[in-house]
Amino acid sequence: MSTIHGIIGYTITPFSANGETLDLPALGQSIDRLIDSGVHAIAPLGSTGEGAYLSDAEWDQVAEFSIKHVANRVPTIVSVSDLTTAKAVRRARFAEAHGADVVMVLPASYWKLSEAEILAHYRAIGDSIGVPIMLYNNPATSGTDMSVELILRIVNAVENVTMVKESTGDIQRMHKLQLLGEGQVPFYNGCNPLALEAFAAGAKGWCTAAPNLIPQLNLDLYDAAMAGDLDRARDLFYRQLPLLDFILKGGLPATIKAGLRATGLEAGEPRLPVFALAEAGVGQLTALLKELS
Amino acid sequence: MSTIHGIIGYTITPFSANGETLDLPALGQSIDRLIDSGVHAIAPLGSTGEGAYLSDAEWDQVAEFSIKHVANRVPTIVSVSDLTTAKAVRRARFAEAHGADVVMVLPASYWKLSEAEILAHYRAIGDSIGVPIMLYNNPATSGTDMSVELILRIVNAVENVTMVKESTGDIQRMHKLQLLGEGQVPFYNGCNPLALEAFAAGAKGWCTAAPNLIPQLNLDLYDAAMAGDLDRARDLFYRQLPLLDFILKGGLPATIKAGLRATGLEAGEPRLPVFALAEAGVGQLTALLKELS
Amino acid sequence: MSTIHGIIGYTITPFSANGETLDLPALGQSIDRLIDSGVHAIAPLGSTGEGAYLSDAEWDQVAEFSIKHVANRVPTIVSVSDLTTAKAVRRARFAEAHGADVVMVLPASYWKLSEAEILAHYRAIGDSIGVPIMLYNNPATSGTDMSVELILRIVNAVENVTMVKESTGDIQRMHKLQLLGEGQVPFYNGCNPLALEAFAAGAKGWCTAAPNLIPQLNLDLYDAAMAGDLDRARDLFYRQLPLLDFILKGGLPATIKAGLRATGLEAGEPRLPVFALAEAGVGQLTALLKELS
Amino acid sequence: MSTIHGIIGYTITPFSANGETLDLPALGQSIDRLIDSGVHAIAPLGSTGEGAYLSDAEWDQVAEFSIKHVANRVPTIVSVSDLTTAKAVRRARFAEAHGADVVMVLPASYWKLSEAEILAHYRAIGDSIGVPIMLYNNPATSGTDMSVELILRIVNAVENVTMVKESTGDIQRMHKLQLLGEGQVPFYNGCNPLALEAFAAGAKGWCTAAPNLIPQLNLDLYDAAMAGDLDRARDLFYRQLPLLDFILKGGLPATIKAGLRATGLEAGEPRLPVFALAEAGVGQLTALLKELS
Repeated sequence: MSTIHGIIGYTITPFSANGETLDLPALGQSIDRLIDSGVHAIAPLGSTGEGAYLSDAEWDQVAEFSIKHVANRVPTIVSVSDLTTAKAVRRARFAEAHGADVVMVLPASYWKLSEAEILAHYRAIGDSIGVPIMLYNNPATSGTDMSVELILRIVNAVENVTMVKESTGDIQRMHKLQLLGEGQVPFYNGCNPLALEAFAAGAKGWCTAAPNLIPQLNLDLYDAAMAGDLDRARDLFYRQLPLLDFILKGGLPATIKAGLRATGLEAGEPRLPVFALAEAGVGQLTALLKELS
Repeated sequence: MSTIHGIIGYTITPFSANGETLDLPALGQSIDRLIDSGVHAIAPLGSTGEGAYLSDAEWDQVAEFSIKHVANRVPTIVSVSDLTTAKAVRRARFAEAHGADVVMVLPASYWKLSEAEILAHYRAIGDSIGVPIMLYNNPATSGTDMSVELILRIVNAVENVTMVKESTGDIQRMHKLQLLGEGQVPFYNGCNPLALEAFAAGAKGWCTAAPNLIPQLNLDLYDAAMAGDLDRARDLFYRQLPLLDFILKGGLPATIKAGLRATGLEAGEPRLPVFALAEAGVGQLTALLKELS
Repeated sequence: MSTIHGIIGYTITPFSANGETLDLPALGQSIDRLIDSGVHAIAPLGSTGEGAYLSDAEWDQVAEFSIKHVANRVPTIVSVSDLTTAKAVRRARFAEAHGADVVMVLPASYWKLSEAEILAHYRAIGDSIGVPIMLYNNPATSGTDMSVELILRIVNAVENVTMVKESTGDIQRMHKLQLLGEGQVPFYNGCNPLALEAFAAGAKGWCTAAPNLIPQLNLDLYDAAMAGDLDRARDLFYRQLPLLDFILKGGLPATIKAGLRATGLEAGEPRLPVFALAEAGVGQLTALLKELS
Repeated sequence: MSTIHGIIGYTITPFSANGETLDLPALGQSIDRLIDSGVHAIAPLGSTGEGAYLSDAEWDQVAEFSIKHVANRVPTIVSVSDLTTAKAVRRARFAEAHGADVVMVLPASYWKLSEAEILAHYRAIGDSIGVPIMLYNNPATSGTDMSVELILRIVNAVENVTMVKESTGDIQRMHKLQLLGEGQVPFYNGCNPLALEAFAAGAKGWCTAAPNLIPQLNLDLYDAAMAGDLDRARDLFYRQLPLLDFILKGGLPATIKAGLRATGLEAGEPRLPVFALAEAGVGQLTALLKELS
């Protein structure tokens, strides 16, 4: 899977007006927009995609529809995290069966997991599928912080765990992955406001919901970084940083859905308890988008 | 609901040998043991009950069975937390419809919630049922830490939020609840190793899985505290503290299930990714229990 | 030194109006007030005494004067912490030479110290004096948090480290001291808002600046706790808690000096950068004191 | 002071064999080595210089000697932090009087300071001297974390606070300084393992003790970053990162002094309680240095 690189765009999950049913046509449109804008991969059912707030049946529908709709135009990376190992295995198999190129796994749990429990969780998922796994570390949402040492232990123990997505916000984790992994473990950045520095540190890609709103700036930053042009990368980064900060602080589902609406794609609102973006926030977001267009 | 007080015993959720199906007869036995030992209330589907790891159908079965089996011998407090407001409302209504005396609500979420989102979540649940709500604050499992000020705002805004379970492990939260709540908001301790000090600070009860294993010591501590006998309470507390520390550190589902097995009640093992207690741990637990018997 | 117990009163260090010189007569008066009120020991040059803000010459003057003025009416516990081991040894010897009964040592440092460095620091001080040492753990001011395991290692390795003052605010540290120390290591509470629970957990004493303002309430709480009367202890605690919270949040030197002024003893103001208590704070403090008198 | 930029080399403070007296000739040699290697500025009496462990008389000697010895070959930035405002003012005046180009101020304190107290501290120092101040934020050693908003408030309120040294290790602080300061507030990196990313984010310089050991690698990284050559900067960074990590984790005074000894300059050892580098550490350091030479 050395081909996974660049701007990896997260999709939102559109709901009908009352929030009760999925709006798959809108999902298809959002996927088309992302691919047409040039993103290098599509990642459905991540945090932005409110995967945690879907019923199992809804989850299956979104996974199947997304993979089918991407139709191999770019690789698809499906987040299959679930609270029990059995459920995560089921989702991983489902995703693979429907054509996912990669599955992403966050060690979501209610109880804090030991290192042995986390390793066994990855091993069980890895053993049940043939496609590669992107290990995802994000203590802010999962409550579990995997040390770089543990991550590398998992990478070494589970053959198809071949990529790491790092979202702690601590750039030194990437340094450690680079040094201890001897440059052999590709890592991806999941923290929007670290986009510049993650590329500086050697990240192969940036997993982000931002290309739903500002794809060209995201892609230009990636291109400048790959070209080794630090001054241009810095300029591009600081230009988009206010928007990156805004969508992170405002909550990705709420801000991305508001931004899509502002740019002509109605995708409904997040599911409660998560609020839609308040009016003041919509005003700020519109102003930020206008400044960048 | 001023009658909720004392030792509130959490139930485990027994599984069959392969972990795939519920073992309701064993659940019934564990409930009987708790009630026979003298606990003042029963709390199914909490953290210890692996509520987060059950399918919706299983959750309904356990809730209905537990309430029916308790049969009003003591009050039943059912944890109805879920990731979306709609699902939590459904569970709360289900629990009330089947006879729960109280429902407990932790603001579980994937995305960090704002104070307004948390308040709206409690309001939606409160408005949908007639029984009282015990608000539950436990940042270690929910990822959301509610300040005492927010808790009191919710108590004031939602009529049937009438009790607070505090599990941060910071005794000063109870002081603040007592002072800012002007002694009118009953609070309950959810942190086992703080049992002594929580009663010293005025807690009305102790929500704990420990009475599955050492009910008499738990009850004696409560009685000594209610009698204002500090020296006896301290002695009783330090006697049971090693076991309280052990079950907290070892994980409640794993240690309580191992302890039940050691005392003759087979309740299966936790669901993966949570491991059963390892052999060494079983040895330690058996030694601790022996010392206390 | 098994005789150190009860209410251990911290002294402030009074300055002249412009803050430049010591006001030893006022210090003498404040010591007399504390002893006359019934405190069980006097502790000069602690955090409250602005020991860290004095020149070496001033420190010596205050130490010598305080010990002489206490004149063995109660034991004197002198804080001798300093940034280098050599300077702390010098202060410890000075205090012993002038009659201190106990010295208190916080592992103050600029650089984070390893456990071996902390142990060597205590050993060097212990080896240089004959009086007992009260080890003081307060990460909030020292930047160094000593685990209970390390504390007990020091107690075991350095003969005259015989007492522990715990100020982390985490009551479970006291539980661990009690269990791992097998009840043989007397511990003292240094966190005012934990006074009730520390006594519940078995603390031998309470090191506090509060008796400069409300000695009787502090002493009554100690007496109730020693008598094992939990209900009375709880009532006394909650009565004084708003003042304890106030002096902690407002900063001890500023609030205690303002309180002394309000009760007729002019002790000047803290040294900059620490501000004197602002007017609004003085109003709140006066109201709190009035309510308690 | 727009001329302060590049590699700003911290000096150690050499002691005689028993640690009791200063070794100024060795200090002179270490300064010459730094300047001859090409560093852009010299910073005496920082953390590395054990400024906190010197007596006032020693501090004065080191400050005077260092400034004189640098002799304007490059700018001198003297750290004048002290626990009281009066003492910090005295040091700032002393440094200016002896020819310092810039003074650096960390809001060192024992008691946690309010924002108003911190601002007043900087204002008092700023008002007492004519040279520029580099504000230094390092919560790990000072215990005080200044928000970017507070830093900018100080920069706006105190005319000669014109530069910011950021050592939190959180690169997003630099982003915020850049955005909120509208690119007008030059910032400098004080966290060695962030050297690459700080330059990527726009830092004007790197305050570091590393050039005592590997000046050419430090300078080359700066040059590559200034030339906008990201690939070369990344290579240079990862080459020196193991050494940067080592000196940070091992403690700067201990590791730099050991490294100087290994390269022919005897500078004694740190003052207790800080240990000299243990034998195993000396071996690792020598191996790291060999690999880089």
